[in-house]
Amino acid sequence: MLEALFRPKSVAVIGASAKELSIGNRIIKNLIDFGYTGAIYPINPKSDEIRGVKAYPSIFDVPGEIDLAHIVIAGKFVPNAVEDCGKKGIKAIIINSAGFTEIGPEGAALQKDFLERANKYGIRILGPNCQGIINTDPTLRAYCNFTFTKPEPGFISIVAQSGGVGELIHQGFSQMGIGTRIYASNGNASDISITEILEYLGDDEGTKVIALYVESLSDPKAFMDVAKKVTSKKIILAMKAGRTAEGAKASSSHTGGLAKTDIAIELIFEKLGILTFRDEGELCQAAAAFAAQPIPAGNRVGIITNTGGPAVIATDVLVDAGMQIPTLSEKAMLELKEKLFAEAAFSNPVDVLATADAGHFRAAMDVMMAEDQIDSIYINFVTPFFVDTEKIAHQIAEVNSQRKKPIVCNLMTDPRQWMGTLDILKSGGVPCYGFPGTAARALAALSRYGALQSRNIGEVKRFSDVDTSRVEGILKKAADAGRDMLSAGEVYPILDAYRIPCAAWKMADTVADAEAAADAIGYPVVIKADAASVIHKSDVGGVAVNLQNREAVREAASNMSAKIGATDLKFLVQKYQLGGREVIIGAKAEKGLGHLIMFGLGGIYVEILKDVTFKISPITEFEAAEMISSLKTAALLKGVRGEAGIDQLGVIDVILRLSQLVTDFPRIQEMDMNPVMAFSDRVIAVDARIALIR
Amino acid sequence: MLEALFRPKSVAVIGASAKELSIGNRIIKNLIDFGYTGAIYPINPKSDEIRGVKAYPSIFDVPGEIDLAHIVIAGKFVPNAVEDCGKKGIKAIIINSAGFTEIGPEGAALQKDFLERANKYGIRILGPNCQGIINTDPTLRAYCNFTFTKPEPGFISIVAQSGGVGELIHQGFSQMGIGTRIYASNGNASDISITEILEYLGDDEGTKVIALYVESLSDPKAFMDVAKKVTSKKIILAMKAGRTAEGAKASSSHTGGLAKTDIAIELIFEKLGILTFRDEGELCQAAAAFAAQPIPAGNRVGIITNTGGPAVIATDVLVDAGMQIPTLSEKAMLELKEKLFAEAAFSNPVDVLATADAGHFRAAMDVMMAEDQIDSIYINFVTPFFVDTEKIAHQIAEVNSQRKKPIVCNLMTDPRQWMGTLDILKSGGVPCYGFPGTAARALAALSRYGALQSRNIGEVKRFSDVDTSRVEGILKKAADAGRDMLSAGEVYPILDAYRIPCAAWKMADTVADAEAAADAIGYPVVIKADAASVIHKSDVGGVAVNLQNREAVREAASNMSAKIGATDLKFLVQKYQLGGREVIIGAKAEKGLGHLIMFGLGGIYVEILKDVTFKISPITEFEAAEMISSLKTAALLKGVRGEAGIDQLGVIDVILRLSQLVTDFPRIQEMDMNPVMAFSDRVIAVDARIALIR
Repeated sequence: MLEALFRPKSVAVIGASAKELSIGNRIIKNLIDFGYTGAIYPINPKSDEIRGVKAYPSIFDVPGEIDLAHIVIAGKFVPNAVEDCGKKGIKAIIINSAGFTEIGPEGAALQKDFLERANKYGIRILGPNCQGIINTDPTLRAYCNFTFTKPEPGFISIVAQSGGVGELIHQGFSQMGIGTRIYASNGNASDISITEILEYLGDDEGTKVIALYVESLSDPKAFMDVAKKVTSKKIILAMKAGRTAEGAKASSSHTGGLAKTDIAIELIFEKLGILTFRDEGELCQAAAAFAAQPIPAGNRVGIITNTGGPAVIATDVLVDAGMQIPTLSEKAMLELKEKLFAEAAFSNPVDVLATADAGHFRAAMDVMMAEDQIDSIYINFVTPFFVDTEKIAHQIAEVNSQRKKPIVCNLMTDPRQWMGTLDILKSGGVPCYGFPGTAARALAALSRYGALQSRNIGEVKRFSDVDTSRVEGILKKAADAGRDMLSAGEVYPILDAYRIPCAAWKMADTVADAEAAADAIGYPVVIKADAASVIHKSDVGGVAVNLQNREAVREAASNMSAKIGATDLKFLVQKYQLGGREVIIGAKAEKGLGHLIMFGLGGIYVEILKDVTFKISPITEFEAAEMISSLKTAALLKGVRGEAGIDQLGVIDVILRLSQLVTDFPRIQEMDMNPVMAFSDRVIAVDARIALIR
Repeated sequence: MLEALFRPKSVAVIGASAKELSIGNRIIKNLIDFGYTGAIYPINPKSDEIRGVKAYPSIFDVPGEIDLAHIVIAGKFVPNAVEDCGKKGIKAIIINSAGFTEIGPEGAALQKDFLERANKYGIRILGPNCQGIINTDPTLRAYCNFTFTKPEPGFISIVAQSGGVGELIHQGFSQMGIGTRIYASNGNASDISITEILEYLGDDEGTKVIALYVESLSDPKAFMDVAKKVTSKKIILAMKAGRTAEGAKASSSHTGGLAKTDIAIELIFEKLGILTFRDEGELCQAAAAFAAQPIPAGNRVGIITNTGGPAVIATDVLVDAGMQIPTLSEKAMLELKEKLFAEAAFSNPVDVLATADAGHFRAAMDVMMAEDQIDSIYINFVTPFFVDTEKIAHQIAEVNSQRKKPIVCNLMTDPRQWMGTLDILKSGGVPCYGFPGTAARALAALSRYGALQSRNIGEVKRFSDVDTSRVEGILKKAADAGRDMLSAGEVYPILDAYRIPCAAWKMADTVADAEAAADAIGYPVVIKADAASVIHKSDVGGVAVNLQNREAVREAASNMSAKIGATDLKFLVQKYQLGGREVIIGAKAEKGLGHLIMFGLGGIYVEILKDVTFKISPITEFEAAEMISSLKTAALLKGVRGEAGIDQLGVIDVILRLSQLVTDFPRIQEMDMNPVMAFSDRVIAVDARIALIR
């Protein structure tokens, strides 16, 4: 429960200061200026009052209860201050002071110290090295923060792993005239995590939309559990930075985290229905639309414009973003011809012309609202001096108030001269932008969210025909022997146990055994050397393919014996698969999360085109099908130039079985099946590798 | 010479009106309000004055000379007004009135009428159906336009095919506090073209940067000739809208042009060194950087930040845009450690911390300026209340005034509270943005332009070993016969004439001839049926490949005879090529421009991945090499998995010979060589097709 942090009835500032330009003064000022409805207790042994508010020498002198304390004193005094807070019964602390883990071992020791004391008393800590929180709830107006942007009350809450970016988003909202509900950034995140804040926002009635910024997740699994619940109640718009190797390095230098370019966070967002942005400006602009508009039923946009070129730009951007600009119905066009100027354009975009008045705009909007094949409306509105633009704005606001279909407006004007028109649109809840591309992308985000919400990935299905105890035994044996790479003689039985079809195989200890095994399997066969010392088999001549008869097997196996000469050398004899399409199916453990499942086309497609997709395990059948269809080269799998397509259900089955295997056995670090041969009627793994977590 | 249009000494407004909300009144108002230094002559038979300026019943009553006239009267009166202008000796006219080609045949007739009269008198016309021009030259201040955005004087000129988009860019500049030099949009473009305006801006001393918006080009060749000259003097930032099929349709509906999704305009931009944008907002934001900053020598950015997260975002965006964030030298880091806070980050990004003062910022900037491996500087500057942000701004402005390396600044602030800081940066010529991504993209645009300018495509080289008269003869024969598809017996001799290597071939009239031809060529061979009636050869069994001997040739040719039974049936007998990498090399005529040359990998790569590149003919060796290296699958051509790479110089040779061929013979509509087999030591066209312009 973070109630004391986000809805404090009283706030003490330990380190409140009379000095104008100090944080201990600024927080008091912010609380007063923003109209905080609770009690403010400046704590300062030397002053009787700070900014006109009675100050106390210590928190023990404060007569009433204190919900929340800011600590803004030097780092070395923080542990004792926390201890005092415990004794006073304070429930939550915002530690604004810096000088902890971010500066090295000495600071880390201080952080450990105050955390132990906080835990002892059950106090929750935000920070240290953080800005704090803002809650604009009109009954509360808690500006427990030393920043400077005063938000209007609104429906969007901000939670950011970086105070800088949190404030950036906050400023963006403020400059766009969008309100904020709750703001929080948690600095060093010693105690209260982004996940916990997210959970709180999920339960906050006043929050409709959550803007989330992260660079890394300390506990991805916990995040997923919480975010899954929150996305069912709130719209989450998120951005993950540190996507590039260089960005990750920059992130690690300020968060103290491990530099790692991970794709997992965006995959988590996708899995949970969190809308991902890669541009913080675009996130802010989309937020304006989300705060005020319904989610469209589909991707079909009706464009109304009173100037030509900007509609062309909007059309390009909408189409690039996957939107459709359908032709209007005959009925609609007839109606428009009756009501608009003769020279207007009656198709979609509908160009009402610069001379159009409020009636013309209204007619076009009414037609779009009535059209079944239109899901949302995009308006280009330039404000010529020779029409009554305020009347037009009133009509747009009125149609907008129907809330039937979302509306965005690219308002092309000089706000200094047309402030009245802008105000009518804004107070009517019409999101206004200054460029067609910006407005178009905001509208596309609404539609993208709609698609994400209507995408039901289904439930994870468990195969019951698997033999977990057999796998358990193999893994235990390897672990007992201190090995983290499994031998072929261990890998294939694991595939068998999970009913992943693989080429018929036998292990052979000697050349003669290999001949017998090949006879039993049937020709052609492939032979692979298997010994602890042999890691890159093909580099040392440890692979011989397409052996047609016993003699060829004998020669190949003898050669390997001579060349490799390991005492533990064994031979894997396998049926050789001709034809088929090479695919790769793999899994890799992600700390604190589970496994990333990988799928791609083998050979040059993965090497040159890097055409692979990932999802987080355990995955559903729907997700496995998405992995296949989302490849750039997906069409190849459907068959080209008269070839038959691959057995798609067979590939999905293998992906799902792999997903279940690594989920059942988290100690599998990495597993590759490369290649898996996909035929039109069957799918067969022909090489596989399993590594365990050390 | 458009001097009278862009630098008028006197302006008449034919149709000047006393009515407040009329265009004829607004233009007078704009001229007065903007401080036009020339003479203003309102023309109105019923008023003695308009807005306090003496009015005249007709232009003939105006005592002095008139350089420029606005015509704002109804369309049907325009031709006579133009005639009068001619008699008065007026040199240029802006026709603001609408009602011409854009409304249909009646309007088109009026347009033809006034144009003929204008031509008679040598008058140049801007419009009709246009806004006009603005020239902010402080000695002139000509606001010959009815729009409403009052620009500050500056160095960027705007020329737009759409008044709406021109005004949009203009508003963008205004809201960013960037000045404008000259503004022009030409409406229906009946006379003065975008190209002519561009040429004028190229000669205008006050113009440093040109922002260009086009949807289509009526005479691409003329545009190229002019733009080539202009790009040697000015920086052109351009955007082409109507890129998507839907966008092109929207464009045609307002320009009356032909709906066509063409890629040629962006290729023209690339060829000439015009920097292309696909987002109008990004263009405006980049313009702010171009107007004030030098072009960086390379793509290596030094980042200075006083807050963590926004530097991570900037790093991601810069890296995505192809920029590098190099590590600083030992020397630089030592210096930073001496001068910054101990807790600062000394690598790149350099985090000076939120508590950094002007001295810290200055030290970081000085180090970046001195570093050889840094070409430009990106600054994140959040304005905490506890530091003297104006002092920091002064330091940034001072370093910026060195103009050694470009600087952009992401200023994170509340402009209402930190106006002073913002003003210091702005008046110091530091481009300021409100989001890290925005600032990063603007900086990347500077670097992208630098790369474009330093890219020297070289000159087009002519092969002298070609036989033009042989091609001339073949084409003439086909034209005389009224054919636009050439036969194989015509195509291959053309390839021979231009020394494009193709598989050894012979034409054969009979089955016996085919056998003899195959014997002479050597096996294996391929036979292709060749007859006017056979267009899709393989669909009708007209292709037989890999024929190993005379019997196989006989059987194949006999089968074709029986199946196709055309009286003009001949056989193309060709050496069958085994192995090699299939590539496609082609050309397609673009009206008014020349040909687009195409290159791509054959087979599934073009079918599934659409991995092809285009350039405008005639192309240089440098461009041909770029075509190869810009393929997504370029690595395949270098050889993968131990294969040898292709003969790249051989491919370049074929591309250049094709380019010369279609340039020499513009009547070639389309030519495909598909496939061309590329081996490690040679390149051989094995199938080709030529279609002539009907």
